[in-house]
Amino acid sequence: MKTYLGIDIGGTNVVYGVVDDEFGFKYQSTLKTKSVNSAEELALHIFSDLKENYKGKLDGIGIGAPSVNCLTQQIEFAPNLNKWGDIIPLKTIFEGQFKNEVTLINDANAAAVGEKHFGDAREHQNFAVITLGTGVGMGLFVHGKLYTGDHGMAGELGHIVMRSDGRDCKCGNSGCLETYIGKKGIIKTTKEKLEFNSGGSLLHEVSPSLITPLEVFKAAKKNDPVALEVVDLVAKDLGYAIALVVNLFDVENVYLAGGVAKSGNILRKRTEKYMRQFTLPNIREKVKLKISEINDKHGAVLGAAAAIKEFQDKKSN
Amino acid sequence: MKTYLGIDIGGTNVVYGVVDDEFGFKYQSTLKTKSVNSAEELALHIFSDLKENYKGKLDGIGIGAPSVNCLTQQIEFAPNLNKWGDIIPLKTIFEGQFKNEVTLINDANAAAVGEKHFGDAREHQNFAVITLGTGVGMGLFVHGKLYTGDHGMAGELGHIVMRSDGRDCKCGNSGCLETYIGKKGIIKTTKEKLEFNSGGSLLHEVSPSLITPLEVFKAAKKNDPVALEVVDLVAKDLGYAIALVVNLFDVENVYLAGGVAKSGNILRKRTEKYMRQFTLPNIREKVKLKISEINDKHGAVLGAAAAIKEFQDKKSN
Repeated sequence: MKTYLGIDIGGTNVVYGVVDDEFGFKYQSTLKTKSVNSAEELALHIFSDLKENYKGKLDGIGIGAPSVNCLTQQIEFAPNLNKWGDIIPLKTIFEGQFKNEVTLINDANAAAVGEKHFGDAREHQNFAVITLGTGVGMGLFVHGKLYTGDHGMAGELGHIVMRSDGRDCKCGNSGCLETYIGKKGIIKTTKEKLEFNSGGSLLHEVSPSLITPLEVFKAAKKNDPVALEVVDLVAKDLGYAIALVVNLFDVENVYLAGGVAKSGNILRKRTEKYMRQFTLPNIREKVKLKISEINDKHGAVLGAAAAIKEFQDKKSN
Repeated sequence: MKTYLGIDIGGTNVVYGVVDDEFGFKYQSTLKTKSVNSAEELALHIFSDLKENYKGKLDGIGIGAPSVNCLTQQIEFAPNLNKWGDIIPLKTIFEGQFKNEVTLINDANAAAVGEKHFGDAREHQNFAVITLGTGVGMGLFVHGKLYTGDHGMAGELGHIVMRSDGRDCKCGNSGCLETYIGKKGIIKTTKEKLEFNSGGSLLHEVSPSLITPLEVFKAAKKNDPVALEVVDLVAKDLGYAIALVVNLFDVENVYLAGGVAKSGNILRKRTEKYMRQFTLPNIREKVKLKISEINDKHGAVLGAAAAIKEFQDKKSN
């Protein structure tokens, strides 16, 4: 039986696990992304951890990360990982540390590969998985295959420009979707709304530095007016963006994954309403917006592990 | 040698031609779309014309039209053909008239098939063709194959919502791209701008009923200030929409086709500027925006003819 290491690098957490051929977990762990200062340090940390706590063999490593160029196998200009450098040759770094074959895949693509292998999308030829977390991304399957585009950059949903005079984005543009519905964007909107609210919100009781999207969704579930206003704004931007995807790609199945998607139906239902509003009327009712069932911390790790397996299987054919 | 009938149905003109296996024209003609009251009348008109003026055999018919659902082989809710009905079973109607096999393809998809078979895109696996005319559409090749989506409706670029409180669209939504950069949209914008301009425009000399996009582009080439303002507005909306496509699909090659694209570089150059502005910085300089070289009245007809040939070839394999 073969064993693979799957690593999901997010803007907030790095989650990794050793999985076998049938994708059962043999070991798993996590660390805060900010706790390491470079990709080399990350590789060394995981290597040391496995040496101490797993000890078994590895047949390959799959890594999901934001802003991956799958053609160059590097992270390129990831706004949420810029502390590690503009160009991060992750494949080279991890192969150097582990002496194992490494394949690098966009985090949203890893979620899509996971959805295709283990999730609801098993039977679908075309679908989109939208990842909502520190960043906002999208993985696409077209004609039954992962589609990564001419430069390995397809699916940059977080960087469609929503308002050309809008918030500054780390990518260099203004008004990108991510600046409104990414983790920091939601926090910023919440603080703006709280400033103009004179006390009628549960969120006034939360210390400003502790406000997170999950706190906002929790308050919204208790019918907090400020939290509900924020959730509605997020849902409107997200629903609009998904309608763009549907009008351009005509995919029947769209999945929400990532940390923010864990808020559950309170966001999904409102997003669905706006999505239908902005979708071409004759396909409006056909689209299904679902929360990914494999959307826990394992989904992206499994997807990354599946990516290296798929890559090796393709080579041996 | 086999011979095919290719028909391109646009909101303004219907262009058709008989082409041989190697796509040489044996006969061609055109008529105004409004001159017929139904699809049955159109089929009869073309049938009678060919009977009188072509007389040879036909091995199949390919039709490109707007709002085609390629799965049902019908035109469904085409805002620019609604005079012919909401659901137009074009395959059935033409097969009834001609006793020949018919395949129906979206007009933008026909342009994309033409671009792949005869144009600059021959070597490309992924690309987009944007058709600018009465309507605004898009044909997509992904993984080397035409991509039509789960319901045969992929590529509805004209119906992405640009301004949710914007102009009413025939599709039922408000603020669709087509209401600004489709033929009628451009005319409307021009008239609005002329109203607030007190004489300093060549376009004041054109009777309002004779203002067309081509008149506007002609005046813009003479540096007419109102025309230049309109062209800039069209370019900004179009460039923004293309940037969405590029951010989501990461296609390196984007082609402009259709009547409005014939305006040439005056629109293309300005559109390119805005496209790059709204594209993710790390792919911004890689995208090529070109005017389709097969973009004359033959391109869509050849594409439609190629579609029936491809369809028959696939069946006989």
